[in-house]
Amino acid sequence: MARYKAVIAYDGTNYCGFQTQENGKTVQSELEKTLTKFNNGIHVPIQGSGRTDSGVHAEGQVIHFDMPNERDEEKLRHAFDTQSPADIAVKSVEMVDDEFHARYLAKGKTYHFYVDTKRPRSPFTRYYAAFFPYDLDIKKMQEAAKLLLGTHDFSGFCATGTEIEDKVRTVYQADVEEIEPGRLRFSFSGNGFLYKMVRIMVGTLLKIGNDRMEVENISKILETKDRNLAGPTAHPEGLYLMEVRYE
Amino acid sequence: MARYKAVIAYDGTNYCGFQTQENGKTVQSELEKTLTKFNNGIHVPIQGSGRTDSGVHAEGQVIHFDMPNERDEEKLRHAFDTQSPADIAVKSVEMVDDEFHARYLAKGKTYHFYVDTKRPRSPFTRYYAAFFPYDLDIKKMQEAAKLLLGTHDFSGFCATGTEIEDKVRTVYQADVEEIEPGRLRFSFSGNGFLYKMVRIMVGTLLKIGNDRMEVENISKILETKDRNLAGPTAHPEGLYLMEVRYE
Repeated sequence: MARYKAVIAYDGTNYCGFQTQENGKTVQSELEKTLTKFNNGIHVPIQGSGRTDSGVHAEGQVIHFDMPNERDEEKLRHAFDTQSPADIAVKSVEMVDDEFHARYLAKGKTYHFYVDTKRPRSPFTRYYAAFFPYDLDIKKMQEAAKLLLGTHDFSGFCATGTEIEDKVRTVYQADVEEIEPGRLRFSFSGNGFLYKMVRIMVGTLLKIGNDRMEVENISKILETKDRNLAGPTAHPEGLYLMEVRYE
Repeated sequence: MARYKAVIAYDGTNYCGFQTQENGKTVQSELEKTLTKFNNGIHVPIQGSGRTDSGVHAEGQVIHFDMPNERDEEKLRHAFDTQSPADIAVKSVEMVDDEFHARYLAKGKTYHFYVDTKRPRSPFTRYYAAFFPYDLDIKKMQEAAKLLLGTHDFSGFCATGTEIEDKVRTVYQADVEEIEPGRLRFSFSGNGFLYKMVRIMVGTLLKIGNDRMEVENISKILETKDRNLAGPTAHPEGLYLMEVRYE
């Protein structure tokens, strides 16, 4: 048996998220279909670092899977890439220790979230950035983002319906920049993120930037753990899983 | 009667080009449908600055059309934008002199062409950039691009099947830059471009950059007017009509 780690990019527009579910096409099921072809029809399950929701994108999702025999890494990457759908790219494949686990050993993740603020909405980014064509005070959002840094119970920034009990996470980086006129990029790095946490943080920061919420409200949400005090969940099309880090 | 000029952006992926034809959805036919709704069902024809092919995009296509009465420009722009399909944006609308004509009075155009060279092909740009994952000497392409500048008979860079007899055009700007690692942008400005001329220029420059053709060949194509000496027509998904200039 040989275990492989792969870095995957995908356009999430036409998928019901990363993880296999009962109905609808997922990135995981497409990747498993390709690997199963390479394995004479014997099903090859893959394990992702975590799920992403419908419409969410990835530049650096990490998966692992086991093949019965060793294969040339670049040949496997090329076949895996070209025989998967065009909206999924296999960026790298490397053989790893049998102990490697894409989910359990993940030490940190980085997400980006893009927001377009210029009217009219660009036809080129309608599936690739959220649209928020309203006044935004970027300095205020940057100030508020700094309050998210550190180790906190992020229950107030977590969607209901999750089974995970421990909601304490550490956020290392939380930034907002205007990368070009009318285009914002939010960046978050941390040791882990709860269900919809990045999108709720972005929705809250946008509400603050739009002057409908005070900067200090961030601390209040962290203290009270009250989801109702936070802003709305930002739309999925702006979100990108950029990197998953391992030791 | 009031004549309006509008600047239009569109994602050309799902259109059979700009200009109305017998079969298939076009940008022009969608825009006319919207305006006809605003005109109590009486057909409103639009005139574009020129056609773009299937899969080709625009950030700055210009059109004109006539309405029976004057309307508020921003209200008309907003209604025109929001009631047209999401892959078409109406960026501006202004009332113009009755003598304005989007096609006859166009004094110049600018096109961009994007090429991705990094493997694997990005799932995000598969409809928005051409893919050429081979060695490219950018300096050589820049040198060759300079030979396209000036007033020439561009018959050698024109696809067959065009009715236009005069193939003399003036190219003011012809550049290639690596705007980020693995991503090239070609820019061309001129007083006009022949059918598929930009795509044939790009295909020829790529062949030169890939060392399968000499820089000097550009001059030979211009002199001999022989399409067979030029490179292949680059794929439509890399091409963007950026701007149309008027006096």
